[in-house]
Amino acid sequence: MNFNEKLKYIQHKNNSLLCIGLDIDIQKIPKHLLKTENPQLEFNKVIIEATKDLVCAYKLNLAFYEEHGIKGFETVQKTLELIPEGVITIADGKRGDIGNSAEKQASAIFNTQNFSAATVNPYMGYDAVEPFIKQPEKGAFVLNITSNPGSKDFQYLKVNGKPLYQLVTMKCKKWNVNNNIGLVVGATRAIELQKIRSIVSDMPFLIPGVGAQKGDLEASVRYGCCHDGTLAIINIGRSIIYSSMQKIFSSKVREAAKHYQLQINYYREKYFSKQ
Amino acid sequence: MNFNEKLKYIQHKNNSLLCIGLDIDIQKIPKHLLKTENPQLEFNKVIIEATKDLVCAYKLNLAFYEEHGIKGFETVQKTLELIPEGVITIADGKRGDIGNSAEKQASAIFNTQNFSAATVNPYMGYDAVEPFIKQPEKGAFVLNITSNPGSKDFQYLKVNGKPLYQLVTMKCKKWNVNNNIGLVVGATRAIELQKIRSIVSDMPFLIPGVGAQKGDLEASVRYGCCHDGTLAIINIGRSIIYSSMQKIFSSKVREAAKHYQLQINYYREKYFSKQ
Repeated sequence: MNFNEKLKYIQHKNNSLLCIGLDIDIQKIPKHLLKTENPQLEFNKVIIEATKDLVCAYKLNLAFYEEHGIKGFETVQKTLELIPEGVITIADGKRGDIGNSAEKQASAIFNTQNFSAATVNPYMGYDAVEPFIKQPEKGAFVLNITSNPGSKDFQYLKVNGKPLYQLVTMKCKKWNVNNNIGLVVGATRAIELQKIRSIVSDMPFLIPGVGAQKGDLEASVRYGCCHDGTLAIINIGRSIIYSSMQKIFSSKVREAAKHYQLQINYYREKYFSKQ
Repeated sequence: MNFNEKLKYIQHKNNSLLCIGLDIDIQKIPKHLLKTENPQLEFNKVIIEATKDLVCAYKLNLAFYEEHGIKGFETVQKTLELIPEGVITIADGKRGDIGNSAEKQASAIFNTQNFSAATVNPYMGYDAVEPFIKQPEKGAFVLNITSNPGSKDFQYLKVNGKPLYQLVTMKCKKWNVNNNIGLVVGATRAIELQKIRSIVSDMPFLIPGVGAQKGDLEASVRYGCCHDGTLAIINIGRSIIYSSMQKIFSSKVREAAKHYQLQINYYREKYFSKQ
């Protein structure tokens, strides 16, 4: 199966478009875990155990682990081992470099760490993305329009009447010969999301920004999905993982994840039901 | 001292604009090192010992280490410990992310690993760069125009008659309130380099692409330096570090580094001599 087929498969199997962002800030986790040998890992264990049947993917922002040095690197490895086969694992590192260096970046993420997908920055062009899409079963999510305030600095600049972000969309469409490129589209950008979906009907979108960043969940589902109500990956981090500071927090986390899964499925039903 | 002052200081002290790229591919290093416990580190030891008085900086492309997992992370740490105080150390990872994630990226590079500078991708705008420039003594080199073929995909697109890369230059000029932003400008782009230097007279340029990528060394010095013949950082990797496959390779490496140092200083004399 190529990456997009793998994604569709797990979205059907778990009936979920939810991706949980495991961007673990140890300042924010229940305090009793700080006494354990590896608080990030112990926290991830609980989150994954509580939610693994409710998600299509987990996304790890690598910087949250890199900050902890060697131990952080180990935590990434051990966290990946806890995630069930078939669930998509996204290395969120915003990589991309000249050809021979991008080869090493992709190898670090796909071979050394065994993630199933990576986020990639388009600024350096095709040869910065290409090493990430060589293996059809591995996916590359290219930054298209991001959820942060700084997205206005360059992504909206007009080139021959079209904003730069749309040119990125069109290039990615052209590059997608292995059917394993996806786009990162912020949930705070509903209008742009609709526009981008109109350009690429069948590419997966990784949609961060719902929850703490106040992105629009309904629009994310409505415009993020392709015609059959799949291929949107709705990433939610802080609003799920930090649901409780209590010693026993797994049920609260499961409840929050379940809430988002159902909410997403409610909108899928509303906009993509066959009847 | 802020970052730019630190850079000028070491460029004067070692009379050098040379940066050596420690992007170590173990396929390319002398074979006897493969029998040691940590070939990358043993190789770096020899390179640094042979060249540390001839350079202003070392640049480590992080992906070449990340590919080796936990061991690679250790190698970065131990390599940094071998580099003399005052010599600039650049973490070449092309980072940049939304604010809270970029904070973690910067913390990983500047606090956990103790590099003095990082390379940053501008696509996500100001809040993706800002965490890298908060500490005035640490530097951020923002990708401006890159040396690879893919640079044509987006960096030259015209926005109101100006190519995107020039808008990146102008934004960085505006953001440079702490005098610690530099720009990455490929040595294969002599005309653009001249243009960029005309926009920012006093920012450091990190110039990769001389050597294996066949960039123009004379133009890199002529247009890369500011008025006093400093602030260009000429990065050379493969043409120096892989000078010899012999068991004793340090003298060949030193010779190659010395050759570039002198060549660069010859052009500095030609274009920036006071007489």
